[in-house]
Amino acid sequence: MKRGFGSDNHSGIHPKILNAIAQANSKHAKAYGDDEWTVKTVAIFKRVFGETALPFFVFNGTGANILALKSLTHPFHAVVCAETAHINVDECGAPERFLGCKLLAIPCPDGKLTPELVLPKLHGFGDQHHAQPKVISISQSTELGTLYQPKEIAALAELAHRHDMYLHVDGSRFANAAAALNTSFKALSADLGVDALSFGGTKNGLMIGEAVIFFRPEPAQHFLYHRKQAAQLYSKMRFMTAQFEAFFDNDLWKEIADNANRKAQLLAQKLSDIETVTITQKVEANAVFAIIDPQLKQKLLQEYFFYDWDESRNEVRWMCSWDTTEKDVTAFTEAVLDVGK
Amino acid sequence: MKRGFGSDNHSGIHPKILNAIAQANSKHAKAYGDDEWTVKTVAIFKRVFGETALPFFVFNGTGANILALKSLTHPFHAVVCAETAHINVDECGAPERFLGCKLLAIPCPDGKLTPELVLPKLHGFGDQHHAQPKVISISQSTELGTLYQPKEIAALAELAHRHDMYLHVDGSRFANAAAALNTSFKALSADLGVDALSFGGTKNGLMIGEAVIFFRPEPAQHFLYHRKQAAQLYSKMRFMTAQFEAFFDNDLWKEIADNANRKAQLLAQKLSDIETVTITQKVEANAVFAIIDPQLKQKLLQEYFFYDWDESRNEVRWMCSWDTTEKDVTAFTEAVLDVGK
Amino acid sequence: MKRGFGSDNHSGIHPKILNAIAQANSKHAKAYGDDEWTVKTVAIFKRVFGETALPFFVFNGTGANILALKSLTHPFHAVVCAETAHINVDECGAPERFLGCKLLAIPCPDGKLTPELVLPKLHGFGDQHHAQPKVISISQSTELGTLYQPKEIAALAELAHRHDMYLHVDGSRFANAAAALNTSFKALSADLGVDALSFGGTKNGLMIGEAVIFFRPEPAQHFLYHRKQAAQLYSKMRFMTAQFEAFFDNDLWKEIADNANRKAQLLAQKLSDIETVTITQKVEANAVFAIIDPQLKQKLLQEYFFYDWDESRNEVRWMCSWDTTEKDVTAFTEAVLDVGK
Amino acid sequence: MKRGFGSDNHSGIHPKILNAIAQANSKHAKAYGDDEWTVKTVAIFKRVFGETALPFFVFNGTGANILALKSLTHPFHAVVCAETAHINVDECGAPERFLGCKLLAIPCPDGKLTPELVLPKLHGFGDQHHAQPKVISISQSTELGTLYQPKEIAALAELAHRHDMYLHVDGSRFANAAAALNTSFKALSADLGVDALSFGGTKNGLMIGEAVIFFRPEPAQHFLYHRKQAAQLYSKMRFMTAQFEAFFDNDLWKEIADNANRKAQLLAQKLSDIETVTITQKVEANAVFAIIDPQLKQKLLQEYFFYDWDESRNEVRWMCSWDTTEKDVTAFTEAVLDVGK
Repeated sequence: MKRGFGSDNHSGIHPKILNAIAQANSKHAKAYGDDEWTVKTVAIFKRVFGETALPFFVFNGTGANILALKSLTHPFHAVVCAETAHINVDECGAPERFLGCKLLAIPCPDGKLTPELVLPKLHGFGDQHHAQPKVISISQSTELGTLYQPKEIAALAELAHRHDMYLHVDGSRFANAAAALNTSFKALSADLGVDALSFGGTKNGLMIGEAVIFFRPEPAQHFLYHRKQAAQLYSKMRFMTAQFEAFFDNDLWKEIADNANRKAQLLAQKLSDIETVTITQKVEANAVFAIIDPQLKQKLLQEYFFYDWDESRNEVRWMCSWDTTEKDVTAFTEAVLDVGK
Repeated sequence: MKRGFGSDNHSGIHPKILNAIAQANSKHAKAYGDDEWTVKTVAIFKRVFGETALPFFVFNGTGANILALKSLTHPFHAVVCAETAHINVDECGAPERFLGCKLLAIPCPDGKLTPELVLPKLHGFGDQHHAQPKVISISQSTELGTLYQPKEIAALAELAHRHDMYLHVDGSRFANAAAALNTSFKALSADLGVDALSFGGTKNGLMIGEAVIFFRPEPAQHFLYHRKQAAQLYSKMRFMTAQFEAFFDNDLWKEIADNANRKAQLLAQKLSDIETVTITQKVEANAVFAIIDPQLKQKLLQEYFFYDWDESRNEVRWMCSWDTTEKDVTAFTEAVLDVGK
Repeated sequence: MKRGFGSDNHSGIHPKILNAIAQANSKHAKAYGDDEWTVKTVAIFKRVFGETALPFFVFNGTGANILALKSLTHPFHAVVCAETAHINVDECGAPERFLGCKLLAIPCPDGKLTPELVLPKLHGFGDQHHAQPKVISISQSTELGTLYQPKEIAALAELAHRHDMYLHVDGSRFANAAAALNTSFKALSADLGVDALSFGGTKNGLMIGEAVIFFRPEPAQHFLYHRKQAAQLYSKMRFMTAQFEAFFDNDLWKEIADNANRKAQLLAQKLSDIETVTITQKVEANAVFAIIDPQLKQKLLQEYFFYDWDESRNEVRWMCSWDTTEKDVTAFTEAVLDVGK
Repeated sequence: MKRGFGSDNHSGIHPKILNAIAQANSKHAKAYGDDEWTVKTVAIFKRVFGETALPFFVFNGTGANILALKSLTHPFHAVVCAETAHINVDECGAPERFLGCKLLAIPCPDGKLTPELVLPKLHGFGDQHHAQPKVISISQSTELGTLYQPKEIAALAELAHRHDMYLHVDGSRFANAAAALNTSFKALSADLGVDALSFGGTKNGLMIGEAVIFFRPEPAQHFLYHRKQAAQLYSKMRFMTAQFEAFFDNDLWKEIADNANRKAQLLAQKLSDIETVTITQKVEANAVFAIIDPQLKQKLLQEYFFYDWDESRNEVRWMCSWDTTEKDVTAFTEAVLDVGK
């Protein structure tokens, strides 16, 4: 497949991360996380996310989300999320299936919840007929490429805690957010009152690996059993945690995320003057959303692969990745211009 | 950790398989299996398991088992298995959790079901009060290192089909079985009437990867949705299927499985004359089970890691792997002799 | 508690139905539905709903809904419903818990879905990442006291079937609808393409009893097992089916439902001229919704019990029942006027 | 159907209980348990079972069991029970479905668990691969008509608590046990360390109604939500709790249970001398189990309905009920003798 802007899942493994796998491939190691790489990586997560952080490793983003949420809920609870949330539209109902919970999905044009949007869903507490709201779940960066400012997350955490609820962050692109906001991971999670974080690696250059991070002991207490029962426990764990070790080493994550974010900025900038393209969302992380001329779309798709976002209005999504180059952006922009002629 | 006989999960990645990952790490590829490696690997599975084979790829053995079984059952069904089955004792109740089904576990000293053992569980058909038996699930090779002969599998398939049931095989070590029996994979599955097979890679030198294989279309029809909902769909799929491609290339699988099996034979042979060790199961695949002197066990454990199997009678398990060497076996045997002095 | 308009669950058992229970209380009868009352009542349902009708009996409305829907879905499916649907807001997440499915809730001010409202949810078919829409579920009469006209139901059934989906009707007040529309039950279900109906008895004078009715064999084939596994199988079934027998005898249901409907009309009419009361929904069945003066509400609540519907705008719900009398309506109206003074 | 010994579910409603329903059928009452009958009945349960008792009302025995157990478990837990337990063989897998838990079924010829039988199942604590044993569930009286002596229950409670586990009692015939042992309900539950009790009414003369009773607050804290989500919340609750009120009034329960128990004694005594009948279990409650001549069985079944227990050895079950008369017993015995000729 031609290099392009289809998804940050379409790029491969960052060479340093592949090398970490190869380096870990020596001798024998205990399975299921009782190995030296995992011990070391847990310590790194505690350094990066703060000493309260309790990290656990799982296979994929859906696995991370359902296990984070399971640790925060009973089946009679409800999870408040944006209508565009990955847990709501891209996981084939895995949360409902695994949790038994209701999702309360809120329309929001930029993919971001606010206390004002959430508040009307926070009722029926104590009424046995109603699923009890227990978690506010947000995505950082959002599925629309937008960002929550730290104070916006703090406000949602405060709202959640005031109602004896939790704040969960789906951070499959959390590195992109931290890089774009130029904050530490701790400053963007533990310090804001986040209770559980799905922290993504696969979309940022790992071969495979996501983490679920809790910031206090109670929700984590049964995690090992839930993970095993959810079929998310990796036997040869060292090959996952070694990747995360490399990811944090020398702030490789920042280099990776910065590149994706900056290329998205560049792409948006280059396209902003083209008449057949209208950028529809703030470009704050590594995604560009645009309404484009339908003929342009058809012609571009002959050469490049990318996803429709809202077919009804010809809105498409372009994603940049750790390996997106300036040349990729230029070539794509030229293709847009070419086709537009 | 010192090299030893703790588990076939303790060894690393076979170099040729790691190389296949590196080779697949070029350019962009569509996610979720729409890539050339996966297309090619599906074709390989059809060549190896027969044209009727419908392979799907998942993260781990528990994932393979619950998805294979989900495709064969409704929640009101029951799955008949050996009491020692992985699905019964090593998956933390994942089958009950994901399927909603009852497991009917049958004690059997060698880990093998027979029609005679299964038949008493096959009653209550049509009675709404009883979970309806729908699947016989066996492990090949078994969790006790024993093997089903092909005709024994055929007899269980026949029993299952006669009762409108399915035969599922947990084949996390299916390669070990095929190598030991010197049969093709097709001859050991499709040709015997197996309906669904969990086919293992991770315990045979892969970094990560298992397959669920169906042998006719009907049970497979909803698999994609069940897999996604079970959080078992891998985004960067090429890095899993490329491993399987290498696994089958030039019959690497046979080399790998043969080595493990033969080293288990060697280990058993070398230990067979030692008074403090009593081999308790036929050594037919890559496992050796033995009752050993408790003092011997304590001393050995200071140097080597391995699992208790039945603590009450000092029975332990030693597993051989793709990378077990004759030197490993000799050194361990000498340690046993040394300690025994 | 004073007689009032709190709920059609607040009234008791119609004397003829209580008498049917007493009449059935003789000798011994087989349990779980293998009794003569149940056989007879099944025949009555087939007469009333058409020969294709396959009725099954359960304890309550939530039980009827989750079992009807379970028979139509796999866990990876989605159910489209009104945001106000009982399955969405009044069952504590039981559908998500029991089905594993996602509910796609659509805001609609009068509680009624239309093809135009539903259509935008019918996408993503065949995409493994998305919960697959499989059922349109409507309530007749609706939770807002409004009615679907027969042709409106037919249009939704046609839309569903065109997409290989099912139409489910939550008919906990289906008798009220049939009475108000002056149609037969068959004309309002089987003849319109309804696939499954939750048919209510408890809110229409039964002591206890609801039915799930399918209109073709396929979705019903596993119902007995699902019902048992859902803990909805009644041992002394005769005492439930005898109630339904009385319910249909001499069209008692019509007398019951007509009374409730007409008293709602009367109440609405009497209140329509009162300045402190604004009727907010068409009064088509047995419910009256109104925005009332907050002071009036507080004072009325000292004497009568009724529910807030939308506290934010002082909207309340008043329900009429099989036993609501003209005197009840007059007394309540006078109380409104009195308080309003 | 002819009066007989098929099941204690085959008899009808005790007249005093039916009368209680009729008495409760006046005026309006709040739904879902907020009524005066329920308030009064809760107080009665606290008097009868001790002040720590927290009773909740549900539709049937399966509902009581799965809700009691759900309140004591997470999905990764295991429930230890007798192989003959109702939860294991007569609920179509409802516990696995609703709890997600594994049942660890122990063969025991008299239906009774002992600490010695249970202990071997209590291992793997803290091991993420194993379902964690959390509940010992026993039936009192058992499905085989036998009884636990109070000290036997106390021993099991002690064993459970020592392992941080709970003791659950499936008491669908708890009244029969208390009557036979001539103890109070409190002395047979709260005083012995029972944590949760499924207390049956339907098999003892109620039309419909079971209770779940907890003996300390913690497991009960989410019960209302679990009950609603399990579709076990009855709207017109007064008609259930009024039955229980009558059941306890003037110790009606004792009269009912004593009659059933004594008729079972009488039946066993009269049959004990007949050559074609061999009583197989101690007759301690209201059941008689016997191996009978196959020809006798066939002929008896032409006149009477009763269940096979173990078809392979011609073992059958005869149950006595609140309404079993001496005449019933005599007639049945004569039929046995007649046929035997």
